[in-house]
Amino acid sequence: MDFEAFFREELADVREDGRYRVFTDIKRHRGRFPQATRFLDGEETQAVTVWCSNDYLGMGQHPVVTEAMHAAIDECGAGAGGTRNISGTNHHHVLLERELADLHGKESALLFTSGYVSNWAALGTLAARIPGLIVFSDALNHASMIEGIRHSRCQKRIWHHNDVEDLDRCLSEYPADVPKLVAFESVYSMDGDIAPIAEILDVCEKHGAMSYIDEVHAVGLYGPRGGGIAEREGLMDRITVIEGTLGKAFGVMGGYIAASADLVDYIRTFASGFIFSTALPPAVAAGAAASIRHLKESSAERDLQKDRVATVRAKLDMMGIPHLHNPSHIIPVMVGDAHKCKRISDWLMDNHGIYVQPINYPTVPVGTERLRLTPSPVHDDGDIDRLINALSEIWSQCELARKATAA
Amino acid sequence: MDFEAFFREELADVREDGRYRVFTDIKRHRGRFPQATRFLDGEETQAVTVWCSNDYLGMGQHPVVTEAMHAAIDECGAGAGGTRNISGTNHHHVLLERELADLHGKESALLFTSGYVSNWAALGTLAARIPGLIVFSDALNHASMIEGIRHSRCQKRIWHHNDVEDLDRCLSEYPADVPKLVAFESVYSMDGDIAPIAEILDVCEKHGAMSYIDEVHAVGLYGPRGGGIAEREGLMDRITVIEGTLGKAFGVMGGYIAASADLVDYIRTFASGFIFSTALPPAVAAGAAASIRHLKESSAERDLQKDRVATVRAKLDMMGIPHLHNPSHIIPVMVGDAHKCKRISDWLMDNHGIYVQPINYPTVPVGTERLRLTPSPVHDDGDIDRLINALSEIWSQCELARKATAA
Repeated sequence: MDFEAFFREELADVREDGRYRVFTDIKRHRGRFPQATRFLDGEETQAVTVWCSNDYLGMGQHPVVTEAMHAAIDECGAGAGGTRNISGTNHHHVLLERELADLHGKESALLFTSGYVSNWAALGTLAARIPGLIVFSDALNHASMIEGIRHSRCQKRIWHHNDVEDLDRCLSEYPADVPKLVAFESVYSMDGDIAPIAEILDVCEKHGAMSYIDEVHAVGLYGPRGGGIAEREGLMDRITVIEGTLGKAFGVMGGYIAASADLVDYIRTFASGFIFSTALPPAVAAGAAASIRHLKESSAERDLQKDRVATVRAKLDMMGIPHLHNPSHIIPVMVGDAHKCKRISDWLMDNHGIYVQPINYPTVPVGTERLRLTPSPVHDDGDIDRLINALSEIWSQCELARKATAA
Repeated sequence: MDFEAFFREELADVREDGRYRVFTDIKRHRGRFPQATRFLDGEETQAVTVWCSNDYLGMGQHPVVTEAMHAAIDECGAGAGGTRNISGTNHHHVLLERELADLHGKESALLFTSGYVSNWAALGTLAARIPGLIVFSDALNHASMIEGIRHSRCQKRIWHHNDVEDLDRCLSEYPADVPKLVAFESVYSMDGDIAPIAEILDVCEKHGAMSYIDEVHAVGLYGPRGGGIAEREGLMDRITVIEGTLGKAFGVMGGYIAASADLVDYIRTFASGFIFSTALPPAVAAGAAASIRHLKESSAERDLQKDRVATVRAKLDMMGIPHLHNPSHIIPVMVGDAHKCKRISDWLMDNHGIYVQPINYPTVPVGTERLRLTPSPVHDDGDIDRLINALSEIWSQCELARKATAA
């Protein structure tokens, strides 16, 4: 077989569909987020404003985070030097896991190298090892959860997105003594909608099912201490496993679960993706711990973010630019066509130095292509006005539909 | 189902088998590797010497690495702020990928958040997406390769470890037009043996199979520029995919593949574990790139490591302490019993502050439990003498078998 020809042909198909991804090569400027430098081919560069980062609160440049990282590098060096079991457990990991357990009011927490791995490894291990377990998975769950469930080869049922009645119906089809796990997210990344957690937990409890929530787009952002939507709604103690990330609102990198001591110990003992991975660098753990500690005490970043999100929404409405209304910090500006979405994104970048990545399939379904805006405390009024005016200009140029203005 | 009781019972079984892992909580001291502080329960600490790190060359404390990390934090902040596609590609990632492609003489390279993920995602994607592909996997391949192959649900054949004739036999069973991929490692982590790469490649080429090599325990350590065993033996251009890590000899964190531009672009486009993960922190990428650049030019670390490994081997032989002879830098001191292995490790720690993690199932087969020593340039003669004398003492105390001394 001519493997190279096969790769080329498959990639050509992706290009034809308008789904080929060109990564935007940037350097964000610490102290001047959301400003960054974009590197073009050759030596050319361009000043850009990033509007699509998941560093939702700008904690990636917060001095408490960067100083903790500098200090840990000076103290412990660059890498952990091993897996957690073979010389790679650094005291900074232990302190961070305590911080996370405390954040979610759980007995214990466990770090992974990424949020993807935490979902894949934790769900995959539970589903593969609990005999006869059936996983009930929300239809819009993240790829990492789907792959973990798939990897386990357990029986699985997909329930309609955020539809508690459908979940109840699915669970009712199985006898009470069949072990069950319900997996869902709090804030869904691409639509920004929020799960009815209390109702889902009612149903889980009714059927004796474990509950597994992915709060990666919520931790740091919601709840009085940044514990997520479940903290805000006083529900953390009713959830079996809370999964989160250190790479979005906390501004660094890594994933985790928080749960009972025995459940965490079980995952720690059996999850291949945990056991056989080099541990996170001590500086990453120290930076993340500093970020969490800060956001437990400070609501200033959350408050300012809410204000920025509301401002962008109001101005989009004034201009009639269609966006999904949702109760979160994520603003999806809907385009609905992969090529058009890419063209608008390119135009914003080339003409205004505004960086909003087009979101295409497979990240969202075909026909729902969008620009996903994530306003944060680091976006000032000037940034917002430049964004809105540029969007309005391209909306007119492309003769895209507007909604009736709010004014 | 009482899930908590289930977890407790399963963990009790692991404890009974002597396979329960207690992580050793340490802080390595930058500038004073292999010395570290161990944190015990409560506030107590202990000074220890680490003898089981995979920071094989001590690059985790090298000034070129730590300075590059400090500079990148000051420049770009803590985290990347997104997936590679959505604002997370930092210029440091691009530079590192160029450095890696150059290291292996390939057109292109791709970063992952860990070596585990690079194997899982790259092998999993190739095996799942190339129609009818059969993977021929060495019997002792790492868990990450096994899980990637398993996840793909492709047809797979296990060939006897490092047995080229068996590989040839397995490949011969399938018609020439069936697409084939041969997956193996260069240095096997736990036995320290090295694959007959040239012979394996001969067989791959004879059958038109792609070759996929895991060089995680070799990159940085072997070859004139640290390109691994395949570089040392002048074979890199004959290998389809070279996979490596930034978390062992390079001293930081992360994994990668290097291959043709189209193959890399293919994995970049289709691998879920790549697409949906937050990118490595810019400082991690900058530190790793600095480490690679340094080890391309400098052989001092490799030469000193070879000397330290030879010294430890010679002294073990003098004392008659049994260890696996192999042509690599890994010295497995064989114990062959999980409980005994753990007891010796505990005794070394408690009485001499010597930290060698016991290696038990599932990392090695039951009955081959061992202490795995990794001498590095940071171990001085005093460290070595203390290790050898302590091992000799416990060997006598436990009345363990000795081999005839070399003297």
